[in-house]
Amino acid sequence: MNSTFNPPKRVLMGPGPSDVHPNVLKAMSAPLIGHLDPQFIQLMDEVKVMVQDTFRTTNELTFVVSAPGSAGMETCLVNLLEPGDECIICINGVFGSRMVTIAERCGATVHAIHTVWGEVTSIAQVKEVLAVCPNPKLLAIVHAETSTGVLQPLQEISDIIHDAGGLLVVDAVTSWCGVPLEVDQWGIDAIYSGTQKNLSAPPGLSPVSFSPRAVAVLENRKTVVQSWFLDLNLVKNYWAGTKRAYHHTAPISSIYALHEALCLVKAEGLENRWERHQAVHLYLQVALENLGFSYLVQPQYRLPNLNAVKLPKLVTDEAQLRSQLLQNYNIEVGGGLGDFEGKIWRIGLMGESCTRLHVNQLIGALQKILY
Amino acid sequence: MNSTFNPPKRVLMGPGPSDVHPNVLKAMSAPLIGHLDPQFIQLMDEVKVMVQDTFRTTNELTFVVSAPGSAGMETCLVNLLEPGDECIICINGVFGSRMVTIAERCGATVHAIHTVWGEVTSIAQVKEVLAVCPNPKLLAIVHAETSTGVLQPLQEISDIIHDAGGLLVVDAVTSWCGVPLEVDQWGIDAIYSGTQKNLSAPPGLSPVSFSPRAVAVLENRKTVVQSWFLDLNLVKNYWAGTKRAYHHTAPISSIYALHEALCLVKAEGLENRWERHQAVHLYLQVALENLGFSYLVQPQYRLPNLNAVKLPKLVTDEAQLRSQLLQNYNIEVGGGLGDFEGKIWRIGLMGESCTRLHVNQLIGALQKILY
Repeated sequence: MNSTFNPPKRVLMGPGPSDVHPNVLKAMSAPLIGHLDPQFIQLMDEVKVMVQDTFRTTNELTFVVSAPGSAGMETCLVNLLEPGDECIICINGVFGSRMVTIAERCGATVHAIHTVWGEVTSIAQVKEVLAVCPNPKLLAIVHAETSTGVLQPLQEISDIIHDAGGLLVVDAVTSWCGVPLEVDQWGIDAIYSGTQKNLSAPPGLSPVSFSPRAVAVLENRKTVVQSWFLDLNLVKNYWAGTKRAYHHTAPISSIYALHEALCLVKAEGLENRWERHQAVHLYLQVALENLGFSYLVQPQYRLPNLNAVKLPKLVTDEAQLRSQLLQNYNIEVGGGLGDFEGKIWRIGLMGESCTRLHVNQLIGALQKILY
Repeated sequence: MNSTFNPPKRVLMGPGPSDVHPNVLKAMSAPLIGHLDPQFIQLMDEVKVMVQDTFRTTNELTFVVSAPGSAGMETCLVNLLEPGDECIICINGVFGSRMVTIAERCGATVHAIHTVWGEVTSIAQVKEVLAVCPNPKLLAIVHAETSTGVLQPLQEISDIIHDAGGLLVVDAVTSWCGVPLEVDQWGIDAIYSGTQKNLSAPPGLSPVSFSPRAVAVLENRKTVVQSWFLDLNLVKNYWAGTKRAYHHTAPISSIYALHEALCLVKAEGLENRWERHQAVHLYLQVALENLGFSYLVQPQYRLPNLNAVKLPKLVTDEAQLRSQLLQNYNIEVGGGLGDFEGKIWRIGLMGESCTRLHVNQLIGALQKILY
């Protein structure tokens, strides 16, 4: 031990991280510059614009939290919720439940909408809860549930929560840069994502954005934000403002990687990227069904980036099969989380891992092992 | 804009980040593997052992927070403090003040010990506050104040706070891997650091360690930790435990870099590294004094890694001089923070930036500009 680590060459088709483009890896090997260096500040500005573009927003308060997606989730909730607030949180998988835990730690009262895992939250369910809680501070919902592979329609829920005077908070960790996502058009007030999914940058950063409505809520808080590290009043002066106020030291190399990965999205074209994910998903679907796998989620709500599938009957030990794939073929796929542990697989087609070559590698290996 | 970023080749002699060794940069350009891959879990184990070794501790609860040093600070305080607790915090620079802000956000009552910036907290001051607050939950203090260049002796304060039944919490962001630091021998109960100072890895991670006494306090909390992302009860099951419980996605590439940087410390020898920092500091000191700079801090409390110096009288605009160094010589040094803005420079000699060649580059440039 304690000598240079030489990682095996894996094919990453799990729930993230996804394969990272060589240019992005190379970007991280560039020498560091200071986090207050004029050239680094310019880089932060460029990153901000590209995050705005990929979120499809003009929100001024758009930046990158210096920690993984979970910290982005916490950033959104601790800044918008105060003790005594009421909020609605939709749960149809692991990440909805996590939002409840965080909201409760903010001292908020949570009205939870529970949906069977693998299904979407319905308009009827939202209306039902609004009857009990007519003036929620916000409604939080997961756009793409990484634990179940469900893609949640947002437009109608957005209209309803706004009519009730609340904010719409969206988890876009597994949707950003992989499926259509329109922050401004859909009226999303606070959104967070992660870098290691459809963007195919290394994990560790969380892009976030807040609408003017959300900023107004933030500015009218009666209490101080419970987290210093995630307090937007402080962080926003580091990412913007006329004078960059030192808050913490930005993760320089990770920002290099994020910048390069965003440049690759720009070069491909965001809409082309969405289409690629959908096309490769359909290509995988046919092949998987031929092998006896079946999809958990109804076709119209299937997330192309994360394929949640039940295994063929002949597979009695899914963990052992995943281990074989990893050890003998260097292919990583994800197992089920929570309720679905041991019951489903989660096959990621994200960013650089979303190619027909990846699908062929996986299907070839499965054919060899199973038949 | 929006094309590959090619950073200039800077010589980093500010308060961090420091220059990063080519092997560490190379480590980051390795392809990613999954964060639950058996090989990644083994890597985390190796990192944990090397963090224990460099902290000089056998603390079982030793791991790396997936966010910068400021989040490490918040991790220590939010886990150990509860609403209504009393604590003592020593302030002789920016980072002591930051701890107060965080402790207050935990609902704790803070008894602050204010010391003139550039001086150390004395035993007499600690005893004075203990007379008013005889049973503090903890005393928090900065070992190496990055804003003033002061190295704080800890052993005697440790004895006093333990006699009072409290924990000792230490900020070791700028001392770890650069000056003698003995977590077990000195009785430190909670410690956090950063990777971008004397370790010379990129910023973005915070190694932390908790003594059995601190773990007992954690286990006897009456309230839930206000941060989900930083809650040790959850994070510790990700970094250890018989079954790695998914909490968040670890920043894979940053952990590669951390591992490689720790291997370099091991190859050099921790004590040799401490001696190198002291020797190069003395080499710089002679050269700076010859140029008319004078040290802010008394010799016995000078932090070798961060040289806080007043400028020669002939310099009327320190910011302009720093800008000249950066633009014309690619050398970064730090300006003053807070009370010392515009009044001092902070010259870092940290890790890979702590060589006589670095000193010669800086001194040569200053001679050229000033004389």
